Amino acid sequence: MELSELATRTGSRILLVVIDGLGGMADDAHGTELEDAATPHLDRLAAEGVTGLLEPVGPGITPGSGPGHLALFGYDPLRFVLGRGALGAAGLGVPLHPGDVAARGNLCTIDAAGTIVDRRAGRISDEEGRRVVGRLATEVPSAEFHHEKGHRLLVVFRVAGTPEALDPRLGDTDPQTTGVPPLEPRPLDPAAEATAKLVASTLEEVRVVLADESAANGLVLRGFDTHRDLPSLRERTGLRAAAVAVYPMYRGIAELLGFQVLGPPADLTEQVRLLEKHREDADLFFVHVKDADAAGEDGDRAAKVAAIERVDDAITDMIAAAEPGVVAVTGDHATPSQMAAHSWHPVPVVVHGPRCGQDGSERFGERWCRAGGLGIRPSKELLPILMANAGHLTKYGA
Amino acid sequence: MELSELATRTGSRILLVVIDGLGGMADDAHGTELEDAATPHLDRLAAEGVTGLLEPVGPGITPGSGPGHLALFGYDPLRFVLGRGALGAAGLGVPLHPGDVAARGNLCTIDAAGTIVDRRAGRISDEEGRRVVGRLATEVPSAEFHHEKGHRLLVVFRVAGTPEALDPRLGDTDPQTTGVPPLEPRPLDPAAEATAKLVASTLEEVRVVLADESAANGLVLRGFDTHRDLPSLRERTGLRAAAVAVYPMYRGIAELLGFQVLGPPADLTEQVRLLEKHREDADLFFVHVKDADAAGEDGDRAAKVAAIERVDDAITDMIAAAEPGVVAVTGDHATPSQMAAHSWHPVPVVVHGPRCGQDGSERFGERWCRAGGLGIRPSKELLPILMANAGHLTKYGA
Repeated sequence: MELSELATRTGSRILLVVIDGLGGMADDAHGTELEDAATPHLDRLAAEGVTGLLEPVGPGITPGSGPGHLALFGYDPLRFVLGRGALGAAGLGVPLHPGDVAARGNLCTIDAAGTIVDRRAGRISDEEGRRVVGRLATEVPSAEFHHEKGHRLLVVFRVAGTPEALDPRLGDTDPQTTGVPPLEPRPLDPAAEATAKLVASTLEEVRVVLADESAANGLVLRGFDTHRDLPSLRERTGLRAAAVAVYPMYRGIAELLGFQVLGPPADLTEQVRLLEKHREDADLFFVHVKDADAAGEDGDRAAKVAAIERVDDAITDMIAAAEPGVVAVTGDHATPSQMAAHSWHPVPVVVHGPRCGQDGSERFGERWCRAGGLGIRPSKELLPILMANAGHLTKYGA
Repeated sequence: MELSELATRTGSRILLVVIDGLGGMADDAHGTELEDAATPHLDRLAAEGVTGLLEPVGPGITPGSGPGHLALFGYDPLRFVLGRGALGAAGLGVPLHPGDVAARGNLCTIDAAGTIVDRRAGRISDEEGRRVVGRLATEVPSAEFHHEKGHRLLVVFRVAGTPEALDPRLGDTDPQTTGVPPLEPRPLDPAAEATAKLVASTLEEVRVVLADESAANGLVLRGFDTHRDLPSLRERTGLRAAAVAVYPMYRGIAELLGFQVLGPPADLTEQVRLLEKHREDADLFFVHVKDADAAGEDGDRAAKVAAIERVDDAITDMIAAAEPGVVAVTGDHATPSQMAAHSWHPVPVVVHGPRCGQDGSERFGERWCRAGGLGIRPSKELLPILMANAGHLTKYGA
């Protein structure tokens, strides 16, 4: 049974707040960051609502951001896959359409004989990288060039410029070593021959343009990938969804799923303002807050606790702004500061609404959520529970 | 996605101690055997680690030893099946190679007219059965004969003696009744014709040898089965595994999955010594302890409690010997002494390691594990969790 068979868009609004990397790991010295943070407003949601723990992908599996979010939106992350190119494009906020092909690019230094002598173009600065990529964007019209950071960029070959869909089955032109020339773009399948020719011709134009550069006079490509044809959240659930995210990657993921992407906001305050302004425009509001994950990845426990407390401070304003019927707060995965990395540990979740049924949870945090009414379950099961709480699902069977 | 796609053999050692039949059933008079046993060392693991309950095959399903162990090694026991012949061979420690065919055999009594008059050969003793099977092993070289118990034996037809692989698709020669002669080995598929001829010729040799026996003068075969081609644990996870088990069946199961099989040890003390000696030889050590299950099957509650307490006494030595990064203690199924049989009840599990995340469990036993951080989950989910804890799994998705 598909959820769409039961979906009825007649319920109340859902506010889903994702605290990136929320989950933690208790040890001899500490509880988890969330357990130890002062979160009076989230605690009240827990006391009035139901709590539980979510496993994003599967037992023991450490999720990347793509699968972690797909699961929260009800997509089985083992069935729906976001490739490196698609996620790279999403990360830069570059829309990728069916038939487009994207690749990660590195600027490099090539000597007079055509061999690569520096794979990072002398570790050029962000500013210098941006300047060189800007030249390509202007002077090589047969593809799109988007600067990422330092010597890294994203190159998008658009289907619009060709009579048929491009095919991503190309070998990397990056030989992953120095002392050899870049590889030719080689089709890995006969169907990719035309795309290989297009890429080769673009790379020839690039060579001409970069010839007068000293450090960044070469470009190699890897990870050719195409648009991923994910069914939209609207198709799957009937819900009109909107994303309120500061970071481009999360706006990008939401866009791939057909969300309306609001803003971009610069901070929590602007996120609240966008919720208020667009309150009537969607059934599901996805609010993404990055700081807790960034602090966890830095191994900075105090900063992660503080980041969680900032969300706690803002949650009342978010609710006042969105006036939702149902509120859920959770994370896309755990990022324990002891590990300074994503991890497989389950992630706390709280669901609050008039029909959630109270479960006696005292506070919001792993040790209380463990005993919560939602139990431990896959993250992909959250969305149907939210839809039910908000009145968006009808009865199954007579 | 297969686990092998994320596997990276760069983590620490895993010690998995399986207390056979560990799970129990509380009633008006008692807690479970584990709840009532004095297990200070296991309790400490629980207090420092995370606990939960495992369901080996599925809700309400009582597992045999094969599925119970496959699940603990991460194999879905409904997808990977160990046949009767393969498990019988494993139980006797008889290796079965691709192309071999094994069958369960019964010695029986046949009258002058060739009809079966006693299907158990007068319930002959173990000693007498061993003597007769020993004669077959010596005097009938075209197959292997391994005594099991009383009138029961295992017969193995080896591919090595024939130009091509044997085929197990043969009908039983055991008519399952008296007053009729044994059936001829009949091919159920044309491809099994050569095997049927080989079996018939072996049975003819058997008739000649047993002609001078009074009670055990006949042999019938059933459950023809072949080597099961299970993917090895190494293929599935990258882990080098080793088994430290006193009983042949558990060494046999481990061998089928490509484990290095150490010993055989005679008792817990020798198991500890093997762990110490081979510490560097594997990533996963499977230690199997049988006594709790045997006591449970005997309906002997006190003996099961004592068996569990003996493992508790030994666990500190096991850990000192193996120096694991991650320790797990659980069972392959429940064997409540009130039922004197295997059962479907969930089995306690404790996982201990620097990244397990503490869950506030106080002791090791069903009533505490029920509230543990691992929740109630299928046994097959344990191995990925152990791999994650030991650092043997990389991130899924970008």
